[in-house]
Amino acid sequence: MKKILTSLLLSEIHDQPNVLRRLLEQEWAHVQQLASTIRARNPRLILIAARGTSDNAARYALYLFGVRNRRMVSLAAPSLFTLYYSAPQLDGALVIGISQSGASPDLVAVIAEGKRQGCATLAITNAADSPLASAADHVIGLHAGVEHSIAATKTYTAQLLALAMLSCALDDTDLASTQLARLPELVQLVLQRDRQQAIAQAAHLLAPAEHCVVIGRGFNYATVFESALKLKELALVAAEPYSAADFLHGPIALVEENFPVVVVNPSGAVFDEVQEVLREVKKRGAQSVVISDGDAALSLAAAPIALPRDIPEWLSPIVAIVPAQLLAYQLARARGFDPDQPRGIQKVTKTI
Amino acid sequence: MKKILTSLLLSEIHDQPNVLRRLLEQEWAHVQQLASTIRARNPRLILIAARGTSDNAARYALYLFGVRNRRMVSLAAPSLFTLYYSAPQLDGALVIGISQSGASPDLVAVIAEGKRQGCATLAITNAADSPLASAADHVIGLHAGVEHSIAATKTYTAQLLALAMLSCALDDTDLASTQLARLPELVQLVLQRDRQQAIAQAAHLLAPAEHCVVIGRGFNYATVFESALKLKELALVAAEPYSAADFLHGPIALVEENFPVVVVNPSGAVFDEVQEVLREVKKRGAQSVVISDGDAALSLAAAPIALPRDIPEWLSPIVAIVPAQLLAYQLARARGFDPDQPRGIQKVTKTI
Repeated sequence: MKKILTSLLLSEIHDQPNVLRRLLEQEWAHVQQLASTIRARNPRLILIAARGTSDNAARYALYLFGVRNRRMVSLAAPSLFTLYYSAPQLDGALVIGISQSGASPDLVAVIAEGKRQGCATLAITNAADSPLASAADHVIGLHAGVEHSIAATKTYTAQLLALAMLSCALDDTDLASTQLARLPELVQLVLQRDRQQAIAQAAHLLAPAEHCVVIGRGFNYATVFESALKLKELALVAAEPYSAADFLHGPIALVEENFPVVVVNPSGAVFDEVQEVLREVKKRGAQSVVISDGDAALSLAAAPIALPRDIPEWLSPIVAIVPAQLLAYQLARARGFDPDQPRGIQKVTKTI
Repeated sequence: MKKILTSLLLSEIHDQPNVLRRLLEQEWAHVQQLASTIRARNPRLILIAARGTSDNAARYALYLFGVRNRRMVSLAAPSLFTLYYSAPQLDGALVIGISQSGASPDLVAVIAEGKRQGCATLAITNAADSPLASAADHVIGLHAGVEHSIAATKTYTAQLLALAMLSCALDDTDLASTQLARLPELVQLVLQRDRQQAIAQAAHLLAPAEHCVVIGRGFNYATVFESALKLKELALVAAEPYSAADFLHGPIALVEENFPVVVVNPSGAVFDEVQEVLREVKKRGAQSVVISDGDAALSLAAAPIALPRDIPEWLSPIVAIVPAQLLAYQLARARGFDPDQPRGIQKVTKTI
């Protein structure tokens, strides 16, 4: 019996395995060509301009291109290009704009300046006919279909996958592309109904909170920011994202008995460091939701949400965000908000 | 009659004009020499590693070196250098570590890797005999005296000034160094007693809140982050920092009747954009504390805090943070916390 998904948002969350599969099929050959063009120019730095959810995809890129491709990434401050009229010397950087709609003038301005300075420019967008796509030399289309929900979900995971495909194609290995091909199936696993009870329990734990913090590190620093953004947009809880390291440099003062904490900690190089923070907040009486595939992490949680095992760390953000999307959806419902009509925000935001 | 400052924190806040004056006197000649060495190597990119308050100084550097020196700045993800053992190719970048204590191993690792790759390296620290200072080729000492308070105040403004001195020395102009020389006096103006009533009123407005947001943009994006961090550390209010542009891309959903907002908006290139957000949150019923020298901004505030006029925008973060420090102090008192003993944090935090 097929479950009927009455919420637009929920149906888009559940559409993600298809979206990822389609993106791999339709863009892999193109991304490989593109990577060969980029490799020939050998950019020493990748400058990325993005806002909101897409900026969280840019955070992923910082670790992705850093760890896998040993390239430096700088997240652009668009106001340098627009309000201050003082763009830095881009010196042959690869300039990437990431945007679902491709409509925000500040991002177009960064791409246009990149072109003016002779840099290779790339738009990653769901709107192939957008101003951002027109401004850039190259475009990776997301093929996610129209995203009707105001809160971005399927275009976010598609943006991450597009970046992962580019990283993989830049330093091609058979192993990496085999790992990419498994992603739709891993995301499908997270969406299975037996995980929904754990997510409902986590929503129940967070429902009374007006604020909480979300903690993680490394590749999943992006997941932390995007989870917090979904919790804010949909459930109107003031969720603040932190790197596990930065959290120890001051903000841990906030934690007291029953303080709600969401910890994102898939297996990988930063696992032990994040565990240390998880143990510390638990000692101070925090109640934690933990999203992880590691028993050592899940066993410390008041509400554990288990991820599938054997996800390569570099791809784990594409899987780990999915339970957080569902959590934000469930929490919105539990707190009496309509996840299809988030209060006071629009789908396309244009800033300069 | 001299007011007796019984709080350590308060006395360090009030010591800032002296600290800034001393830093200018003791380091200006040295910074000019250093700038000439750096100019000779012509680094195309500046990579900065920092944590906590010092990371907010790094945010200032992004705009400072971008707007004034047209150089790209990348904020390092230290875990690339430590936990992932996968440092990017630094390609002749100037590598800067900023830290009050100079003791955190992750920052030392970034400087050490910069040196290994043949980059120029610089430590900006209050501890000239620290591991960070020892690892770097060059050191700008802050000369702030021992900072006894756990919450950093005088070392933060000193870090900003050290960066501003370097920026000024890299592209030397007489005007800029004249502007630098006026800073101690401008900070002194903010500390005058007639502003204290406005700050007390702002603390009264924020006292019942468990969370709030702090909004600004451009050069004062740093002030926004540092203000939010002080509010968290000292007053245990979950203050979340936002760029005015990013706030419109989703988080504005949080704003409802009486939602508390702190807006930092000194005169400058981003003033009108921040004003737009201020008008929008006011329309939604937010109660705002506004830190600005502009009447158009102050007149929209429930609690206006006026800055001295005629502060050059590039130096305004060094002045605008001071009322926010005082606000965090007052708010801590109003909420019954001891600002000299913030709950559960240490002065020196070592992370890897």
